[in-house]
Amino acid sequence: MIRVGVLGATGYAGAELVRILAGHPGVELTAVYSRQYAGVPFTDIYPSLSGVTDLVCEELSIESACGKADVVFMALPHKLPMELVPVCIRKGVKVIDLSADFRLRDAQVYEAHYQQHTAPDLLAKAVYGLSEINTERIRTADLVANPGCYPTSVLLPLAPLLKANLIDVESIIVDSKSGVSGAGRSPSLTVHFCEVNESLKPYKVATHRHNPEMEEHAGAIAGRPVKITFAPHLVPVTRGMLSTIYTRPIVKIDEDDIQRCIEDFYGGRSFIRRLGRKRMPDMLHVRGSNYCDIGFTLDKSRGCLILASAIDNLIKGAAGQAVQNMNIMLGLDERTGLAMTPFPI
Amino acid sequence: MIRVGVLGATGYAGAELVRILAGHPGVELTAVYSRQYAGVPFTDIYPSLSGVTDLVCEELSIESACGKADVVFMALPHKLPMELVPVCIRKGVKVIDLSADFRLRDAQVYEAHYQQHTAPDLLAKAVYGLSEINTERIRTADLVANPGCYPTSVLLPLAPLLKANLIDVESIIVDSKSGVSGAGRSPSLTVHFCEVNESLKPYKVATHRHNPEMEEHAGAIAGRPVKITFAPHLVPVTRGMLSTIYTRPIVKIDEDDIQRCIEDFYGGRSFIRRLGRKRMPDMLHVRGSNYCDIGFTLDKSRGCLILASAIDNLIKGAAGQAVQNMNIMLGLDERTGLAMTPFPI
Amino acid sequence: MIRVGVLGATGYAGAELVRILAGHPGVELTAVYSRQYAGVPFTDIYPSLSGVTDLVCEELSIESACGKADVVFMALPHKLPMELVPVCIRKGVKVIDLSADFRLRDAQVYEAHYQQHTAPDLLAKAVYGLSEINTERIRTADLVANPGCYPTSVLLPLAPLLKANLIDVESIIVDSKSGVSGAGRSPSLTVHFCEVNESLKPYKVATHRHNPEMEEHAGAIAGRPVKITFAPHLVPVTRGMLSTIYTRPIVKIDEDDIQRCIEDFYGGRSFIRRLGRKRMPDMLHVRGSNYCDIGFTLDKSRGCLILASAIDNLIKGAAGQAVQNMNIMLGLDERTGLAMTPFPI
Amino acid sequence: MIRVGVLGATGYAGAELVRILAGHPGVELTAVYSRQYAGVPFTDIYPSLSGVTDLVCEELSIESACGKADVVFMALPHKLPMELVPVCIRKGVKVIDLSADFRLRDAQVYEAHYQQHTAPDLLAKAVYGLSEINTERIRTADLVANPGCYPTSVLLPLAPLLKANLIDVESIIVDSKSGVSGAGRSPSLTVHFCEVNESLKPYKVATHRHNPEMEEHAGAIAGRPVKITFAPHLVPVTRGMLSTIYTRPIVKIDEDDIQRCIEDFYGGRSFIRRLGRKRMPDMLHVRGSNYCDIGFTLDKSRGCLILASAIDNLIKGAAGQAVQNMNIMLGLDERTGLAMTPFPI
Repeated sequence: MIRVGVLGATGYAGAELVRILAGHPGVELTAVYSRQYAGVPFTDIYPSLSGVTDLVCEELSIESACGKADVVFMALPHKLPMELVPVCIRKGVKVIDLSADFRLRDAQVYEAHYQQHTAPDLLAKAVYGLSEINTERIRTADLVANPGCYPTSVLLPLAPLLKANLIDVESIIVDSKSGVSGAGRSPSLTVHFCEVNESLKPYKVATHRHNPEMEEHAGAIAGRPVKITFAPHLVPVTRGMLSTIYTRPIVKIDEDDIQRCIEDFYGGRSFIRRLGRKRMPDMLHVRGSNYCDIGFTLDKSRGCLILASAIDNLIKGAAGQAVQNMNIMLGLDERTGLAMTPFPI
Repeated sequence: MIRVGVLGATGYAGAELVRILAGHPGVELTAVYSRQYAGVPFTDIYPSLSGVTDLVCEELSIESACGKADVVFMALPHKLPMELVPVCIRKGVKVIDLSADFRLRDAQVYEAHYQQHTAPDLLAKAVYGLSEINTERIRTADLVANPGCYPTSVLLPLAPLLKANLIDVESIIVDSKSGVSGAGRSPSLTVHFCEVNESLKPYKVATHRHNPEMEEHAGAIAGRPVKITFAPHLVPVTRGMLSTIYTRPIVKIDEDDIQRCIEDFYGGRSFIRRLGRKRMPDMLHVRGSNYCDIGFTLDKSRGCLILASAIDNLIKGAAGQAVQNMNIMLGLDERTGLAMTPFPI
Repeated sequence: MIRVGVLGATGYAGAELVRILAGHPGVELTAVYSRQYAGVPFTDIYPSLSGVTDLVCEELSIESACGKADVVFMALPHKLPMELVPVCIRKGVKVIDLSADFRLRDAQVYEAHYQQHTAPDLLAKAVYGLSEINTERIRTADLVANPGCYPTSVLLPLAPLLKANLIDVESIIVDSKSGVSGAGRSPSLTVHFCEVNESLKPYKVATHRHNPEMEEHAGAIAGRPVKITFAPHLVPVTRGMLSTIYTRPIVKIDEDDIQRCIEDFYGGRSFIRRLGRKRMPDMLHVRGSNYCDIGFTLDKSRGCLILASAIDNLIKGAAGQAVQNMNIMLGLDERTGLAMTPFPI
Repeated sequence: MIRVGVLGATGYAGAELVRILAGHPGVELTAVYSRQYAGVPFTDIYPSLSGVTDLVCEELSIESACGKADVVFMALPHKLPMELVPVCIRKGVKVIDLSADFRLRDAQVYEAHYQQHTAPDLLAKAVYGLSEINTERIRTADLVANPGCYPTSVLLPLAPLLKANLIDVESIIVDSKSGVSGAGRSPSLTVHFCEVNESLKPYKVATHRHNPEMEEHAGAIAGRPVKITFAPHLVPVTRGMLSTIYTRPIVKIDEDDIQRCIEDFYGGRSFIRRLGRKRMPDMLHVRGSNYCDIGFTLDKSRGCLILASAIDNLIKGAAGQAVQNMNIMLGLDERTGLAMTPFPI
């Protein structure tokens, strides 16, 4: 049995990894690491998961992790992974990193938005883990950079149209709405119930770090530079992300063409639910699952194609896609351990 | 493979039954019936379940159901089941009824709170489906009356103490808080978002129909009449029920005694999570699962033992317990198809 | 004392009118009319307002209203007002109509989106009640067509830039997020708590009836046709509307220019709070008030100016602006009766 | 004009004080103090209040406050006020303290639940500011100890019955539900949106510090010791508190008697809305106001009288009652500056 470990297990993405991996039939979860809770039983921190695992959080140690696991998940803040990943690579341990450290191909872009990169040589080795797009390269990767939640929700609906060269790549506008869990578990005024409840606001408009990430990988798919104006919004729900994407078709197309384009692109992939023309997705309908729901509407008279996608930011936007990537790396069915159906409500 | 059908599949409890049964490894879901949506694919009504089933809702017909299923679930408003159940019993089809029609042993009590009973002879045949309490009788039942959500949340924590004769049965007070899904899917001002959000209120205090139900079955467990003052409250969450129960110990006991009493009673049962002394349950920690979490605090100086329980009203309070009862009836492990872990958040 | 009456007093916008007018020092609320609740004391329907008014709802009658009031507010569904308004005009009673019936100048556009117009001759007489824009014309109006909530939230931030001819009028994109009260008080699945809570979804993308309304009045401000791609979203809050507006500057401008443009335009108007560059509005910060908060961010490298506005959809988006218009019509300070400060949280 | 100042102005209760006092026609708000935000304009911290005040937060200084204000409000954590209040008293400045420091008559009880009391001599001087109960003593007080939110919500409905000696004082049970703002503005996991949303849980059952406070003042009203079993619950709303109170009548009474008892007791007091028999209060209906709504139901067959009250925990439970007390101390109408009507929704 393949052994897996989670570093940063007590953040929200980490805890979702623990929940999913503990129930995964193809791997054994052998160790969980936490900087804050070393020595504490995992389910003392997450009583909802009582019964799922008996593991006790261990002091963060990459040596320990490499000894106990064949695949290591890192659900840590950026900066830490670029120090730890080289150790894993040296020891032949595969890594799925949920931070931003290995998502950008160009160290300079990374350094402009984060800080100095201390393992720039590994950037070329890292595969961007957008499961449905980079499947083949993920299969043989030793290091997967798991995408950000916003880029996942933006790239999946855009990919078919970018690939088919149907839209203007200079004028894409993305208006994203994210649930609060995307901000992480650390207490702050930003996530205080009373500041979020009955509130809704844009934040980091045109300055969010996921903006260059989505532009780079959209460019890779399109084969030419792509410009995306990006405005994220914080909304009063726990989980969920909905991105509304405004694009300008550059060829004469109707809704049939668009539907066919998306359908052909994602044909066999079961986590992408294509809702079809005029049926737009709802954040609630993917809650708790690894699905990405995609819908679209063509505003013909105004020359605008509106795409929308919905994901659960903690699953398809983080832990779920990470496990999907692991499945691909291990040669398993990509759905293994991820058969989570959303609730009716 | 055992074939199962759901009548009233498009209400919230019905939809949960469909979700759980469609993924159940021991049975085959063969038909779903709906009075309102006959002819409509089930997942058109619940897009979140897209991919789970291809079934199309059929016109409500007990003959059809008895032909297509070995076990029939009824998620219908009361009054209808007492007309349909006799047909099933005649045809040798097992029934799990989620309505109130067969929950009360005494037709007169039923008629005082509902309406005339048209199948009173079946009342003695029906087994009250409180899975952990009536396990043996459920095993051989042809007709299971699935408990109400409130009685489930109240009887499970009370049962060990009633059985052990540790508390005054004349002065039990229950303050319950229920999520909105308990009110069903039919639109009304009561469930209008703007009337519920940021609201919290008691309703039907001392007049709720679940009050005689919980008193009758508490009495059956205690072996003598039990009086329960019951105040339900509507709270702005979708799913979840938390009951806080105030009792007066009639013998000198400390927290160790109470913990042992509960532990001994539920020893091997995996859906009852005993939190132990002073650790009180949280509605969020059971959301999406078939768990009932139970905690307690002894207010020694005031002579009051406070118990609290948390369940997901649609699962342990409805569809989940119904499937658990089916598992018991069919001789399966009671957990089959019910291994749903709550999310970390 | 000026006498005022409210037709359709028991919907959410109507009830807000009652609340505001009952406390207004310059007018006397003499009658409230309801189709559904004739004969019922108003505060039986809205217990929160107990103590505010003793009025009993009367059967809807325009004759009665014209007898008892000098100014009539209509908070009715469209179609009804165009039948009642002519009576008021004949009798010399001023009308503020919150429906869509008199918002569009062109009967044909109205008929394309609603139904046949039965009082087209009054369309030229009606003044579009965007208080800060059409102040002078409102002053002398007999019939004010109170703007829709979406158009209010879109036109107020756009007006200065349209007037100054700074942005491309062919490529405006509006992504609006509305609280649930905008959908009205009538129960339906759309506003069921369980369908809205933890949900977020676009609806009526490019087909919403407020789309032609905002285009017409944006065109009137700009002095040339304006195209707006419009995607409304339903969000799980009771009150509030946030519109994010994506525009392309057609001249070289920086953030100082934009700030000055908005500042100059709204100089003395106290309900428009200009947040200034990079400070984006929050729905929560205007909740319960007649404010419209406006912020903006210039995404220079991508050639996009992002504006955002926040209003309380029931106040500045409906009842508050209606009373503001009444104040202007009556020659009162526009703030009279509207000094409602949002809560800190 | 009377000058007033607020110490601890940037917590939630403090900010409510600022909002109310800034709009109060009988006093002038001259200074606001904050330990955390000295030098920052108040509305930078609370943008929603932009336009309400131009005051800049000052470094906490009791000397400064006593110089600038005739009445000082303290919205500080306990322990600090008992150090500052003696200064005010010496200088002849009146104090309304929202902390627990002067609420308990007996220093030993205080010390058992908080810490050493450093100004025990002032305890006898302090008047417990339950406005409707202690009106006369508040009128001449120099130091008012503003009640806790829970005790306010519990004592107001109980007072008439305790005074009339109608209920058993040994077996009172209180199940309270509080909105999150009661936990204050400091970030912590307890108030993290994701931990509160869709959650509901009891906490500090039988150990909450407001328990001895409500027992002491219930005893003062009843004229004999009162025992209250108290279980507070945290619920996912921003503002609001609902207490459900279970009592046992000790004389033969019916609902008319109870209604008359409450009516007689509160006759002229406009902030106590008596809903009458069987009509139970809703947290939403008092949101944003200084009202306390009281309802009751008599469960005759089980010998239990259930009372329920609803308040806005930040207003009647904190800042509103504090201003009401100030009004009484200054000989103003107690409603001055507090005419806040709840919204329809």
